[in-house]
Amino acid sequence: MSFENAPTKAIDVDGTSFVYREIGEKSDVPVIFLHHLTAVLDDWDPRVVDGVAAEHQVIIFDNRGVGGSGGATPTSVEEMARDAVAFIRALGLSKVDLLGFSLGGFVAQVIAQEQPDLIRKVIIAGSGPAGGEGLSNMGAVLQDALAKAGASGKHPKHFLFFSQTDNGQVAASAFLARLNEREGDRDAAISNETIGAQLTAIHAWGQGDPSKLSEIHHPVLVANGDDDVMAPTINSFELARRLPNAQLSIFPDASHGGIFQYHPVFVQQALDFLR
Amino acid sequence: MSFENAPTKAIDVDGTSFVYREIGEKSDVPVIFLHHLTAVLDDWDPRVVDGVAAEHQVIIFDNRGVGGSGGATPTSVEEMARDAVAFIRALGLSKVDLLGFSLGGFVAQVIAQEQPDLIRKVIIAGSGPAGGEGLSNMGAVLQDALAKAGASGKHPKHFLFFSQTDNGQVAASAFLARLNEREGDRDAAISNETIGAQLTAIHAWGQGDPSKLSEIHHPVLVANGDDDVMAPTINSFELARRLPNAQLSIFPDASHGGIFQYHPVFVQQALDFLR
Repeated sequence: MSFENAPTKAIDVDGTSFVYREIGEKSDVPVIFLHHLTAVLDDWDPRVVDGVAAEHQVIIFDNRGVGGSGGATPTSVEEMARDAVAFIRALGLSKVDLLGFSLGGFVAQVIAQEQPDLIRKVIIAGSGPAGGEGLSNMGAVLQDALAKAGASGKHPKHFLFFSQTDNGQVAASAFLARLNEREGDRDAAISNETIGAQLTAIHAWGQGDPSKLSEIHHPVLVANGDDDVMAPTINSFELARRLPNAQLSIFPDASHGGIFQYHPVFVQQALDFLR
Repeated sequence: MSFENAPTKAIDVDGTSFVYREIGEKSDVPVIFLHHLTAVLDDWDPRVVDGVAAEHQVIIFDNRGVGGSGGATPTSVEEMARDAVAFIRALGLSKVDLLGFSLGGFVAQVIAQEQPDLIRKVIIAGSGPAGGEGLSNMGAVLQDALAKAGASGKHPKHFLFFSQTDNGQVAASAFLARLNEREGDRDAAISNETIGAQLTAIHAWGQGDPSKLSEIHHPVLVANGDDDVMAPTINSFELARRLPNAQLSIFPDASHGGIFQYHPVFVQQALDFLR
């Protein structure tokens, strides 16, 4: 079962329907993917999902209010983390790995802090700690990219996820083509209300007190492009420096979507790390 | 012609014989490799040399007083840079790329500053800027590793170049085996006098005034392991941040020898960068 043809399922989480997809063989410690700002199920790079699913059960889902999931998206990372934990528990899981990208990386940090026994290992990509440099600016960066996208006829991720070099822009087109591989049973679009709530949560995270990262003793793999315009790369250095048990992977000539641009290398690093 | 069977040649540089090896097809802009503390010709990873030589002429050499080269090793990075430039000019070259590893990365920075027109692109691995955090401590780190090596019967590079995890130590053994692939025409050993002069130069670099990195406008690829015990990784972040035209590559679960541990990925990144 690959990501391209994994059916979209739904589960009741405390009275709200959450949509998700499972890929890979069932395992004791599945890897839960935590999505980014504006993302629905179809925004995950199939190469990363299928790559990790080669050795692990992978579960991707829409958090509350996102895509096909019901309810209203909360306006704090802490509430998003509680919703994610409720979803994980609703699946009957008692131990999981997390892969959080961008906003999902914020959520992963809170889950690791608040539910340490639920978590084995954590991958945090394109993200940063609470109070991290430039993180509260993500809304303005998004707005600027939407304007550029409108003016140029390109997808905003050309500006947000990839470097503006030839290499970066070729990688952007390849990534966007991968997101379109799945033909049927695609997820619902994200709503403007949800984006607004996510931006509120991200702004509060960026303005928040520094996380107590020294309390997260799980093994963590931190990954990013070397010039992330959404979550400035210095935040990845900070995560790796302040987390007691962290590894760091930085990809050259890459931005927020570095793990997608370098998906063969990143998948290998993720598999090595999760082993 | 691969690194394993490239003959060791010699050239007169202002009255002193410098030894070198050439690999790959002749090209207009060869890549000059600048070696690390204690290194002779046989300390370069054949996979990295041959990997870069797949698309470029690669020239490795012993700087003054090192291995089979004559003369006395100077006690400053600036003098080493002048010797390297004299070697490059003696070969009749007017434009080169540089790949400097550790001490060689210091030398590369000085060459790029003092002879900007001689240089096209620069790769700096396992290195850092003048005055960089912890760089003047390299001698003590070396001494500690020599003691551990003596006590454990392992090569010092197990401690200096690779992380102490299972992955890191397997990579260390594989790297050391690669260094032994060449059977004949091996280089002379390094002398204690040369190591002493190199340590003096490194100490002065580490205590030196911060380099004027903003003056280096060449494209630079900075690479390192995420936990370099010889040239702390924060120095690679600093190089990438302060150099006006830099890319950064950081390898997880890796130390000073990250580019050797991840040689397939690093070679690909280097080829992309040099194209």
